[in-house]
Amino acid sequence: MPPVTPEPDSTLAIQKRQRALVDLLSAWVAIPSVSTDPKYAEDVHRSAEFLGRAAVDAGFQRAEVWETEGLPALFAERLEDPALPTVLVYGHHDVQPVDPVSEWLKAPFEALERDGELLGRGSSDDKGQLAMHLEAVRGILDARGHLPINLKLIAEGEEENGSGHFDGLLRAHREELRADVVVVSDTGMLGEDLPSLTIALRGNDYWELRVQTADTDMHSGVYGGAVLNPIQVLVEMLSKLHDGDGHIAVPGFYDDVVELDAATREELAAVPFDETRFLANVGAVPGGEQGFTSLERRTARPTLELCGIWGGYEGEGAKTVIPARAGAKLSSRLVPQQDPARITRVVGEQLRRLTPEGVRAEFKLITSGRWALTSSDHPSVAAAADVVEGVWGRPPLFTREGGSIPPVTSLGEVLEAPCVLFGVALPDDHFHAPNERVVLAQLFRGMEALGRLWDRYGAMGREALTAAPG
Amino acid sequence: MPPVTPEPDSTLAIQKRQRALVDLLSAWVAIPSVSTDPKYAEDVHRSAEFLGRAAVDAGFQRAEVWETEGLPALFAERLEDPALPTVLVYGHHDVQPVDPVSEWLKAPFEALERDGELLGRGSSDDKGQLAMHLEAVRGILDARGHLPINLKLIAEGEEENGSGHFDGLLRAHREELRADVVVVSDTGMLGEDLPSLTIALRGNDYWELRVQTADTDMHSGVYGGAVLNPIQVLVEMLSKLHDGDGHIAVPGFYDDVVELDAATREELAAVPFDETRFLANVGAVPGGEQGFTSLERRTARPTLELCGIWGGYEGEGAKTVIPARAGAKLSSRLVPQQDPARITRVVGEQLRRLTPEGVRAEFKLITSGRWALTSSDHPSVAAAADVVEGVWGRPPLFTREGGSIPPVTSLGEVLEAPCVLFGVALPDDHFHAPNERVVLAQLFRGMEALGRLWDRYGAMGREALTAAPG
Repeated sequence: MPPVTPEPDSTLAIQKRQRALVDLLSAWVAIPSVSTDPKYAEDVHRSAEFLGRAAVDAGFQRAEVWETEGLPALFAERLEDPALPTVLVYGHHDVQPVDPVSEWLKAPFEALERDGELLGRGSSDDKGQLAMHLEAVRGILDARGHLPINLKLIAEGEEENGSGHFDGLLRAHREELRADVVVVSDTGMLGEDLPSLTIALRGNDYWELRVQTADTDMHSGVYGGAVLNPIQVLVEMLSKLHDGDGHIAVPGFYDDVVELDAATREELAAVPFDETRFLANVGAVPGGEQGFTSLERRTARPTLELCGIWGGYEGEGAKTVIPARAGAKLSSRLVPQQDPARITRVVGEQLRRLTPEGVRAEFKLITSGRWALTSSDHPSVAAAADVVEGVWGRPPLFTREGGSIPPVTSLGEVLEAPCVLFGVALPDDHFHAPNERVVLAQLFRGMEALGRLWDRYGAMGREALTAAPG
Repeated sequence: MPPVTPEPDSTLAIQKRQRALVDLLSAWVAIPSVSTDPKYAEDVHRSAEFLGRAAVDAGFQRAEVWETEGLPALFAERLEDPALPTVLVYGHHDVQPVDPVSEWLKAPFEALERDGELLGRGSSDDKGQLAMHLEAVRGILDARGHLPINLKLIAEGEEENGSGHFDGLLRAHREELRADVVVVSDTGMLGEDLPSLTIALRGNDYWELRVQTADTDMHSGVYGGAVLNPIQVLVEMLSKLHDGDGHIAVPGFYDDVVELDAATREELAAVPFDETRFLANVGAVPGGEQGFTSLERRTARPTLELCGIWGGYEGEGAKTVIPARAGAKLSSRLVPQQDPARITRVVGEQLRRLTPEGVRAEFKLITSGRWALTSSDHPSVAAAADVVEGVWGRPPLFTREGGSIPPVTSLGEVLEAPCVLFGVALPDDHFHAPNERVVLAQLFRGMEALGRLWDRYGAMGREALTAAPG
């Protein structure tokens, strides 16, 4: 472990980078790196190269465009000393499409600064947060000439288009990406005055179930009443996957679920969550597992949802058919410590038990992803919480996301390192919508927090940083 | 009631029409009156006119082409004496398409006589059976110069295309079509040596059920676990419409079902029905209501079938959506004395009871048709059974069809007359398939039987003919 020597404080030098951050981000917003539309492929390449040059300008020792079969990622690193902790920062340099363009106050790829905000596609999601990282590095180097940690940066080019090649990229470059902690900056906070850190994401299994009761569709007059109907079989099987209280009726499903302890329930209860507004937003009817709050159900408890169903006649009017086949898409959101492969097995076994004799049933895994959790008392998260409190003036709330972020899942799995989700976007940033904006004060505070966080991580050393809590 | 005077027997004169029947049918087969393909519309018109001329040649006093918004029907009548019973004969002059043409032994619209059969599209379904009626009339008139009954004939031009305009046609011409008995000749017998009469058809209600739980589709990560899922709601509702024994779990559904008495069960048990072959034919799994034979289930018991279901994502791969809506098509086959409107009401009420609070559900009737039954001891059927026994040499079996024949339902409803289903097609006639054929001996026997049947009806007189049995 290296000696912890007093270092000049970097805060002032980082604050001096505020104007540079706005300029860098404005120039980068001008590159329309839309990943969902092939006609912008060249722009996504330009964006990766722009980021590479900016990283070297900021003080990274090297930057490489990493090609994939889709769109390129950008990797950069600055290695100080193998004995110091290594942090890998994740973000993405591609952006969402801009339709409808007419609703933008200004052209979406021309940054507009006003009232302490910067408008433009990608300003918040996620170019702003990556620019924040670069300028924080530059500020620290301006003050001291070196970083308190080894820093690596991976910026994906297909995040807005499904991250289809990211997992493969991670596996191919596993050694170069190796780190003690992964810091993901692609999430947000509850509010400018309500700092928060996301500490958990749910995992996900997605399956298809097909049942077949005959070789061919049958006339409901001729066969009706004397043969099994595959839609009937399917609805009976699916209806038995939950009990009357909304619990999942699959033996073994809950075996590895970590029950929510009092501390976790308190942590969640502290998060302001307006259920009425949440439901009214989409006109939804409340539902789910008895014995838990809505927020617990949608973030900290596993689910088994029916995402699709089909069979027989779906057109206008009447067709008196008994189909030969029917099918459904099912999905489970998974929580610690559920193993996606084991859940696939127990759900498959239960469906087999529910399949009537003679019915041909096929149950197939489509996609699978692990949950992610770095608990609030993990040293890497606790340190982040401390610096957030120092910069924002109040301790952050710890939130859990109900969804999965596939690249985060991949990072955790492939690199086997704790993930800290440090993001400064705000709920009203209009990401994926017209007039995306970033609140500049959030980026500025974020730079300062990163400066302090790298100091903390460096001071803690590798061992303490990655030690299991408790 | 007119005096019953001895009449010259018409059998010999009818037998003399056998060659004329083959010639008439061959000429008519040459007109490609395919109703499902608009390019044959002119041919369907020619077919109606051809039939009209043939009817007048046979001795009908008048024949009229009745236009519809689709394809035309042909009406003809010969009225002897208002005091005599009036019989309306139903058949259709349109035919099925002929694809695949390459599988025909000869061009489908060129009749081919060989081995006692006549091949050609429409030879059995249904031109052959209508020609049989015409030549029977001509034979009787050759022998006596008059018929023992008043005879009307309605030949539909859209039976193979859904009978879309037939109900309206019947209602528009209700008075001209008025009859004491309707004789439908568009069904068949179990075998050449196994004469049978169809005495019942099931009715049919067809509905659509839609459930909605939100205004918009939702992300399964963000909302999963905290909101009602419409597919889950739908499968739970639908799974509760049957109990574990396959009985329909809708209060009131069976209230008006006439329980099968011993005589009816014996009548059905006498029908040769190979369940193994019936199921193997379509590779189906046996199912249905406990306590009944397969044949009873599919012909004499009501059903509630799921004909279609949809909701959420049905494509390839995964989409982690909780949809806002899901829906299903449901259908009931109905038996005496169920009232289709009442069944719609009780099913709708049960679905309302099963709808969770807050869920928007819509239940809509798509089509509705009554069952048809003219029991084997109805005088009109008993007389037909007698003449069949006389001509075929053994008493006919009484069969029930699980399906509905929409024009038969319409005839029974609009004209409020008993329907006798007297048809001579055979199961191997390949109707709707290449190499459709008719066994000429069946048509010849049919002519003789019709000659005897009209004598019997005439002798019985209107009152006895239409009296309720028992």
